[in-house]
Amino acid sequence: MSKAKNAFYAQSGGVTAVINASACGVIETARQHRDRISKVYAGRNGIIGALTEDLIDTSRESKSAIAALKTTPSGAFGSCRYKLKSLEESRAQYERLIAVFRAHDIGYFFYNGGGDSADTCLKISQLSKTTGFPIQAIHVPKTVDNDLPITDNCPGFGSVAKYIAISTREASFDVASMAKTSTKVFILEVMGRHAGWIAAAGGMASDEKTPIPIIILFPEVAFDRKRFMALVDEKVSRFGYCSVVVSEGVRDKDGRFLADQGLRDAFGHAQLGGVAPVVASMVKEDLGLKYHWAVADYLQRSARHIASRTDVEHAYATGAAAVRMALAGKNAVMPAIVRTSNQPYRWKIGEASLKRVANREKMMPRNFISPNGFSITARCRRYLEPLIRGEDYPAYDKNGLPRYVRLKNVAVRKKLAEPFSV
Amino acid sequence: MSKAKNAFYAQSGGVTAVINASACGVIETARQHRDRISKVYAGRNGIIGALTEDLIDTSRESKSAIAALKTTPSGAFGSCRYKLKSLEESRAQYERLIAVFRAHDIGYFFYNGGGDSADTCLKISQLSKTTGFPIQAIHVPKTVDNDLPITDNCPGFGSVAKYIAISTREASFDVASMAKTSTKVFILEVMGRHAGWIAAAGGMASDEKTPIPIIILFPEVAFDRKRFMALVDEKVSRFGYCSVVVSEGVRDKDGRFLADQGLRDAFGHAQLGGVAPVVASMVKEDLGLKYHWAVADYLQRSARHIASRTDVEHAYATGAAAVRMALAGKNAVMPAIVRTSNQPYRWKIGEASLKRVANREKMMPRNFISPNGFSITARCRRYLEPLIRGEDYPAYDKNGLPRYVRLKNVAVRKKLAEPFSV
Repeated sequence: MSKAKNAFYAQSGGVTAVINASACGVIETARQHRDRISKVYAGRNGIIGALTEDLIDTSRESKSAIAALKTTPSGAFGSCRYKLKSLEESRAQYERLIAVFRAHDIGYFFYNGGGDSADTCLKISQLSKTTGFPIQAIHVPKTVDNDLPITDNCPGFGSVAKYIAISTREASFDVASMAKTSTKVFILEVMGRHAGWIAAAGGMASDEKTPIPIIILFPEVAFDRKRFMALVDEKVSRFGYCSVVVSEGVRDKDGRFLADQGLRDAFGHAQLGGVAPVVASMVKEDLGLKYHWAVADYLQRSARHIASRTDVEHAYATGAAAVRMALAGKNAVMPAIVRTSNQPYRWKIGEASLKRVANREKMMPRNFISPNGFSITARCRRYLEPLIRGEDYPAYDKNGLPRYVRLKNVAVRKKLAEPFSV
Repeated sequence: MSKAKNAFYAQSGGVTAVINASACGVIETARQHRDRISKVYAGRNGIIGALTEDLIDTSRESKSAIAALKTTPSGAFGSCRYKLKSLEESRAQYERLIAVFRAHDIGYFFYNGGGDSADTCLKISQLSKTTGFPIQAIHVPKTVDNDLPITDNCPGFGSVAKYIAISTREASFDVASMAKTSTKVFILEVMGRHAGWIAAAGGMASDEKTPIPIIILFPEVAFDRKRFMALVDEKVSRFGYCSVVVSEGVRDKDGRFLADQGLRDAFGHAQLGGVAPVVASMVKEDLGLKYHWAVADYLQRSARHIASRTDVEHAYATGAAAVRMALAGKNAVMPAIVRTSNQPYRWKIGEASLKRVANREKMMPRNFISPNGFSITARCRRYLEPLIRGEDYPAYDKNGLPRYVRLKNVAVRKKLAEPFSV
């Protein structure tokens, strides 16, 4: 047997506009070290692909197809929401993973995801110690929520932040021109169940050159209807209109999601999702103002057409660094983005221990939120600005659509006799 | 008095990503003919600016500010939803307009809007005949709904179509990668109260190279819940997921808007707007499938960051042509886009009589909708393709935001003693 081993790579959790750029970083870097890494096998639908021995042979993809991953949103190999339990609780799963890794000579495990995935990756990293099976597990950070600790920011976040900042500016221009006789309040719902990073990005739409009345509703700040309405009223009186950026995770003082308490369908059943229409109803009820609302949902995290160049670079670099760390013999680590300077913006890749990453959420620091709780501070702006800087446009086909790659995703021949159900 | 007259320009109705490109075409072309057109005065908030003598002196704007209008979304001078009644019904309004036009030596009237605005423009064009006040009225087409007759398409539509096509493709890539363990059906609500042009654009997300299971719900086709669910079920069985693009104007067989019949707030009041959550609830109820939904709302019509280059060119050209028509002595006309060839796409500016434009809506032809009523035909694709072709990116500031211009909008000194309330 040669010294070279195969690598396993999988995408996990909600996908982003740039997670494939990380995949590109992993695969291109691995291809530069064929003496050490024979092939990169991707899990079809994340870790489920490993459990079911449904592996994709990325060596069957052309150089140009792999390069095109850098400008293609979403998870090219399929992702999943599936959390491994602990070794004690679910021994069969880990034995299966080892059987699959052994059968396919896999020595490197790259897992591209958020906090839950870091936990899975940490468990895999411990297999060599607990079971004697030699494997190195490296986590590649990814999450639009920007809630991983240690790393300055998470690949995926910069692009959704750029999308929300731009969309808020554009829609605010729209409302401003209609406000005289029509809509006075525009409400945009954004992602972020626990942390308000994405909502904060809406605040970037307004700056010194282009001031816009924006009110942000953070999940970190309990919703106070009276204070909120007073502020809407003030902004509309002063500017003629205002825009509200509301996080899907906003709760009232009793901790209940605003999204869950408002709407009922025709049969009286609670209607899940959609905090924007709830806030809109309140504005109508309390102030009688004409409103419009939008829910960006998947559009925000798949908007590769307006990805942040900084974010694309981070995503690629963390993927590439993960492979370099593996080749350097590391285990149970994650490449982290380290900001070394704000002006000019400079960054490098550092190394974070997975034990310090897994299962921890990074909330917005209180000093990033203005004292009144409805906007962002200058400190927050300095943090966000470089992350949304730069454009990195995909190529377009003649029919006006972006040229996003679809890989062949050829399956690796199964070697195990037994199937495994997840 | 010199032969040169001033011109009045106003934006009307819902704004678009490119209506300012038409404004740019009007103003830049007028500036080339100062011997005939002294100044262009813009109405602040559309025709209301004319009625209240609230005029903006565009000659106070620099050349570069006017040029920047070409890449700035929404209505730079403010728009309005305000329809003039007939001369018989509302004589005072017309007398006021004439008083304002006379006071400011206005001989040309350029009105940038949709069907209702064409009607207003037509009424103004008749003033010289009915009242003896010499004025030429030219309509500049604009509407995201693409429902004006005669012109091949309406400036504003191509950009919203491009945005919806791209967003549908991007979100579909997202769903496809999550479908194994999460969302199976994604529902995107788009504009178009009466005509399904924008919904049709969602169908462009899928093509031969990148097939995507997309179901379109057109306002032209009565919603049949059973047939729709059967199709969703079939697509999900076959592809693992599907995307639904639903027009806000979809109605059931009794003509009731789907959006109006579904949601109630906590107090049982009907919740206006939001057909996407209604359709999502039905999918959950009938098929038990996990869904996500988005409502693009203003985001779609203000998305200048991904405007169609064809659309920007059309918008500018119709604005410029309106001025040339005025200088050629025309009245009661509209520059129309005439498609002279599909492959290669070629177009020119024609002339449409306002009598044939005002108050007529152009629906999707039946042969643009597939026989089953849920997708677009090849003929529709051939029509849409050139309209979403090409990108025309705005410049970006160092902070990652597009550089959209805000004009000074300096008011012209009032000359009339009496105010006028609208």
